[in-house]
Amino acid sequence: MTDSWAAFGADLHLEPVGTGLRSGLTAALREAVRGGRLTPGTRLPSSRALAADLGVARNTVADAYAELVAEGWLTACQGSGTRVARRAVPRRADRAAAPARPVRTGPAYNLKPGSPDLSGFPRTAWLKAARKALTAAPDEAFGYGDPRGRVELRTVLAEYLARSRGVYTDPERVVICSGFVHGLALLGRVLRRRRVREVAVESYGLAPHTERLTEAGLRTPCLPLDGHGSRTGELAALRGAGAVLLTPAHQFPTGVPLHPDRRAAAVDWARSTGGLILEDDYDGEFRYDRQAVGALQGLDPERVVYLGTASKSLAPGLRIGWMVLPPGLVEEVAAAKGGGDWMTGVTEQLTLAEFIASGAYDRHVRSMRLRYRRRRDQLVTALAERAPGVEVSGIAAGLHAVLELPAGAERSVVQAAAFQGLALDGLARYRHPDAPAGRDALVIGYGSPTESAWAGTLDALCRVLP
Amino acid sequence: MTDSWAAFGADLHLEPVGTGLRSGLTAALREAVRGGRLTPGTRLPSSRALAADLGVARNTVADAYAELVAEGWLTACQGSGTRVARRAVPRRADRAAAPARPVRTGPAYNLKPGSPDLSGFPRTAWLKAARKALTAAPDEAFGYGDPRGRVELRTVLAEYLARSRGVYTDPERVVICSGFVHGLALLGRVLRRRRVREVAVESYGLAPHTERLTEAGLRTPCLPLDGHGSRTGELAALRGAGAVLLTPAHQFPTGVPLHPDRRAAAVDWARSTGGLILEDDYDGEFRYDRQAVGALQGLDPERVVYLGTASKSLAPGLRIGWMVLPPGLVEEVAAAKGGGDWMTGVTEQLTLAEFIASGAYDRHVRSMRLRYRRRRDQLVTALAERAPGVEVSGIAAGLHAVLELPAGAERSVVQAAAFQGLALDGLARYRHPDAPAGRDALVIGYGSPTESAWAGTLDALCRVLP
Repeated sequence: MTDSWAAFGADLHLEPVGTGLRSGLTAALREAVRGGRLTPGTRLPSSRALAADLGVARNTVADAYAELVAEGWLTACQGSGTRVARRAVPRRADRAAAPARPVRTGPAYNLKPGSPDLSGFPRTAWLKAARKALTAAPDEAFGYGDPRGRVELRTVLAEYLARSRGVYTDPERVVICSGFVHGLALLGRVLRRRRVREVAVESYGLAPHTERLTEAGLRTPCLPLDGHGSRTGELAALRGAGAVLLTPAHQFPTGVPLHPDRRAAAVDWARSTGGLILEDDYDGEFRYDRQAVGALQGLDPERVVYLGTASKSLAPGLRIGWMVLPPGLVEEVAAAKGGGDWMTGVTEQLTLAEFIASGAYDRHVRSMRLRYRRRRDQLVTALAERAPGVEVSGIAAGLHAVLELPAGAERSVVQAAAFQGLALDGLARYRHPDAPAGRDALVIGYGSPTESAWAGTLDALCRVLP
Repeated sequence: MTDSWAAFGADLHLEPVGTGLRSGLTAALREAVRGGRLTPGTRLPSSRALAADLGVARNTVADAYAELVAEGWLTACQGSGTRVARRAVPRRADRAAAPARPVRTGPAYNLKPGSPDLSGFPRTAWLKAARKALTAAPDEAFGYGDPRGRVELRTVLAEYLARSRGVYTDPERVVICSGFVHGLALLGRVLRRRRVREVAVESYGLAPHTERLTEAGLRTPCLPLDGHGSRTGELAALRGAGAVLLTPAHQFPTGVPLHPDRRAAAVDWARSTGGLILEDDYDGEFRYDRQAVGALQGLDPERVVYLGTASKSLAPGLRIGWMVLPPGLVEEVAAAKGGGDWMTGVTEQLTLAEFIASGAYDRHVRSMRLRYRRRRDQLVTALAERAPGVEVSGIAAGLHAVLELPAGAERSVVQAAAFQGLALDGLARYRHPDAPAGRDALVIGYGSPTESAWAGTLDALCRVLP
C-alpha cells in the first residue's frame, strides 16, 4: 500500500454512507476521476489491495470497479489491471464561455400590463379543489390522455363559457392549451397548412402574438384602429388575409370595445370569404361598469375561434388556456399539439375543473373584480387630483388603463419613470410596425402590483406624470 | 300585445333567475335569436311594451336590448326600432361534417410499452407535497417566470440527478420541459438553427421521436445495433450527423445497455467532430439486478445533453421532463421554448420539487421498483413454465421486456393477441425504415397494467404465446 493510496482513501472520505458502501465507493471514485485527482491512464490498485486498505470486502471494490468500467470511467484490460480511461476526463465547464444571464433585479414599482395581482392567487381554495379532484380522478387520468385535454375540464369550461361569456360550445369543441400564445401558435400552424398566407392583426397589440404567427410562416398586415375599435370593414381590402386576430371585448391595449357595426362587419367578412376570426378574450371576466359584452364567437361559432386563458383571472403560472373551435378544426388543432406532448399537466387540469365546478372560480373572479375596480377608481381619482392634464381613456374593464399624455410627452415620461424605479409602458411599444404614428399615451397595468404594493405604486406614478 | 309575444315570453321562461333579471332576459333573447325562433329582420316590441308584458322595469328591457345590440344580435335604427340583425343567425353546426372521433374502447388487456402502472400514482403523498409547496411559494412563483422552469425544481433535480444517476450538473444547466418529446423537439429546433442537418438515431426506437426531429427539418439516418447496443464506432461514417440520439442505460426497445466501448466511442466521436449526444434516460431509475449504470452525460457534460422524465417514474399526465444541457446551449433552448409559453405549470413544478426534496420521490421509486421487479420475475417464471420456447432478452430493468419468438411468428402472435383483446407490440413496429429486417420478438410493457389487472394480463399473454 503506497502513501498515495492511503491519502486517496482519506481524501475521498470512503466511509460507509447511508446509500450503501458500494455505491459510496463508486461515487467517490467517479468523482476522483471526474475532478482530475485520478488522472487518465493511472493504474488503480487491485481490488484485493484497495479492499484491505479500506477494510471492506473485496467484492465491494470489484463491484465498484465493474460499475465504473461499465460507465466508461475506467478500463479493465487483461494483464494490465484497471486504469483510468483516457477519455474519462471531461473538459471542464468553461464558465467564462457560458453567456452570463442578466441578474434580474425587478423594478421597485411595476405597472407593466399583462399580469394579474399574483398575491391574489387563491392558494387555499386551489388546494381544496386539488384534493377533491385528485382523490376522485380515475387512474387513467394520469396517463398520456387526450390531446384536447381532460374531458372533466372541457365539460366544465363549455358550461362556464356559455353562461358567462355567451360562447356557443360543447366539450367536443374545446381544446385545452398552455395559454393564449400556445393556442395562437397552434392555430398559426394549422392555418399555414391550410395554405393561408396572411393573418390580419390589430394596429396595436402584443408583438409576441404577431411573432408566433410570423414563425408559422404567416404575414401579418394590420387593420386600422379608431375609437370604435379595429376597422373590420377594411378586411376585404386585405385580399390575402385568411384570418383576423381581434380583441373584441376590450381592445388591447387601447381599451375600447369593438363597435357593434364592426363586429357585424368582421362576421360578414368571414362568411363571405371563408375567413376565420380569432377572438382573443383575454380579460372578458373583468368589466366594472356593466356586464361585459358577450363573445363575438356566439354570432358565428363556425367562423370564430374563441380563445380564453386563466392567466389573467387566476395566474399565468398555471399555464392553462382554452380554445373553442369550429368542429372542422378540432382534429387539426389536436394533431398540431404533437401527439401527447405540449400538454397541460392533468393535476392542474383536474384541479381547475373542480375549482370552476365548485363555484370557487366565480367567487374568485368576483373578489378580484372588486379589487381591480377599486384600483381603477383610485387611479382615476388620483389622476384627477394630482395630474389633471392626464386623461384615462377606454372602458372601465380589464387590468390596464390608457393614460393620454400631451403630444410628445410619452418617451420622456417612460424614461423619467424608469429613473424612479417605476416600470411602465408607452403606447408606442404596442404599435404595429406598419401602423401610422399615433398619440402619446401610457399603458398602465394596475393589476400587476401586489395588494400591499399598490398604494405606493400609484403614488410613484403620480409623481412622474406631467 | 300580440299572441306571439305572449308565447315568446312564456317560451323563453323569462322569470327572474339567480343571475339577475336583466342578464336572464338578455340570455333568453340571445338564445331565441341564436336558435332561430326570432328570425333575422324581425322587429322586436318596444322596450316599454315588452316591459309591461313581462312585468319588469322598462330599463331592464332597454339594457338587455342595448347589450344585444353591442354583441351584434340586434340592430337599433332610428325610426325603425329594434330588429334581429340579418347576420345574427349562425350557420348551424353541421354535426355530420365534423369528423367522427373513434370511440375509445380500450383493449381488455394492455401490455403495450410506454406507460407506468397508473394505479401506483402516489396521490396522497403528492397532495401533501402540493400543500407544503404552494403554502411556501412566493407570490412571484405564480407569474410567467423563467422559461427554464422554477429554480426550486431545477435545484432539487440537479442534486437528485447527480446523486442517483451520476449526472454532472447544477441548476443553471437544467431546463424543465413537458416531457422527453418536448425536450427533443426543442433540441431539434436549436440544432437545425445551428445548421445541423442530420441527427443519427438508433435502428430501433420510437417513431414519434424520429418524427419530431424530421419536423424540425433534420434527417435521421440510423446506426446499426447489436447485442452490445448501438454501434457508435460507425458514427464517423455518417459524415453529415451533427448529433446522435441514444438510450445508453437501457436501449429502447431491445433492452441492452450500451457497452462501455460503445459509450467511449460515442464520446470520442462527439469530441472529435464537435457533435452532440442526446441521452434519453427514460427509465434510468428502474434496474432490478444491480445499481443502474450511471449516465453517459457524466463522461462529458459539454458534449452530452441528458434528458429525463417523470413520465415513467411517476405519471405521464404530469407532463414534466428535464434536460441537463451544456452551458452554451441553455440560452438557445430556453429561447426556443417561446418566451413564457409551452411551460409546465408552476403548481406541478413546485409540487415535484417538494416531492423530491422530502424524500417521497425516492420512496415512490423504490416501491415501484419492487412492484415492477416482481412482475418481471413473474413474467420470466410464467414463460419458463407455459411457453418454454420463448426467451426473455435484455437486462432486468425498466418497464418492458423483449420476448424472442421463433422466426416468422411475430405477426401472427400480435394478431392472435389482438383477437383475444390483448394489446401488445411486435418488435418490427419499432424498426427504423432504413434498418435491415430483424428477428421476431414481442415488446412487452409489463409496467402498463394496473396492479389488479396484472395477473389476468399475464395469463392472457401466456395463452397467445407459441
